[in-house]
Amino acid sequence: MRDLKTVIRSLPDFPKPGIIFRDITTLLADPEALCEAYDAIEKYLRTKKVNKIVAIDSRGFLLGGALADRLNIPLIPVRKKGKLPFTTISEEYALEYGTDSLEIHTDAITSGDSVAVLDDLLATGGTLKATCRLIEKLGGEVAGIAVFIELSFLKGRDRLTGYDIMALVDYDSETV
Amino acid sequence: MRDLKTVIRSLPDFPKPGIIFRDITTLLADPEALCEAYDAIEKYLRTKKVNKIVAIDSRGFLLGGALADRLNIPLIPVRKKGKLPFTTISEEYALEYGTDSLEIHTDAITSGDSVAVLDDLLATGGTLKATCRLIEKLGGEVAGIAVFIELSFLKGRDRLTGYDIMALVDYDSETV
Repeated sequence: MRDLKTVIRSLPDFPKPGIIFRDITTLLADPEALCEAYDAIEKYLRTKKVNKIVAIDSRGFLLGGALADRLNIPLIPVRKKGKLPFTTISEEYALEYGTDSLEIHTDAITSGDSVAVLDDLLATGGTLKATCRLIEKLGGEVAGIAVFIELSFLKGRDRLTGYDIMALVDYDSETV
Repeated sequence: MRDLKTVIRSLPDFPKPGIIFRDITTLLADPEALCEAYDAIEKYLRTKKVNKIVAIDSRGFLLGGALADRLNIPLIPVRKKGKLPFTTISEEYALEYGTDSLEIHTDAITSGDSVAVLDDLLATGGTLKATCRLIEKLGGEVAGIAVFIELSFLKGRDRLTGYDIMALVDYDSETV
């Protein structure tokens, strides 16, 4: 697989000064590179023998849509508060200032499910951790977490001890 | 293809009294039905000879992720204001009270592109129309629009005259 850093665009000072945004739209627009990225995630998920995919709103839906289709297994959305219409449970996570919460439908996961969690990015790990808790509250087991990008200098893995995490590319500092 | 109404869940009084929410999470959780739905959209997109897929934030990302992977063509996200990090153009659309706007990266579409627009739902057609305008502003042609669900009693097609639209299932009234 090619180095994804050659297809991910780095944009300084977005969303604010000092932050470098790792823009996956250039990866999404390159079908060959994207297919290679999905191939690697598909291979990982098959070794983990997952029976459901949980995708995190909203960029996680891009990965989840493709991988659930490839594996032919159920696709479960985790969304921001108030978006899911059926009975939900919720889990808070920290923002820079204050908190927000994520929700999942209570009928989405059942005891014994072996679940993969997909998102585009592992940063501080807050939304991934909240998502894992939602799955576990419903009796599921998180068999693996897959992301395109890890920002390891934010130490998200420290918050996700005990989970198996697969990231296709790592940025270990805030440099272009 | 089976009748998708048997796998889409109808939830009265969400998000507010009198509205019936057509919940696709039950379709997403049924891999066999979802695969049939994607097969039908894939077939439609192949007849339209599209070379790019534009997916609308956020439920459209679920469809876009799968179909861009199947067709092996670029996947372009259209997002709410302020979410896309590179140079954008924007287009307003009406809400029940006030307006909101959608954005697209200026480098996402080039003159001569034949584009498919994907979302889960055609309701009033406001976001789909704004998305088509964004594509056309950048020189692309909208070759087709595909959605899971049409709510034809909201007359969204009247706002989308001249576009080819494919909906997998139609609800012609606000009844369960």
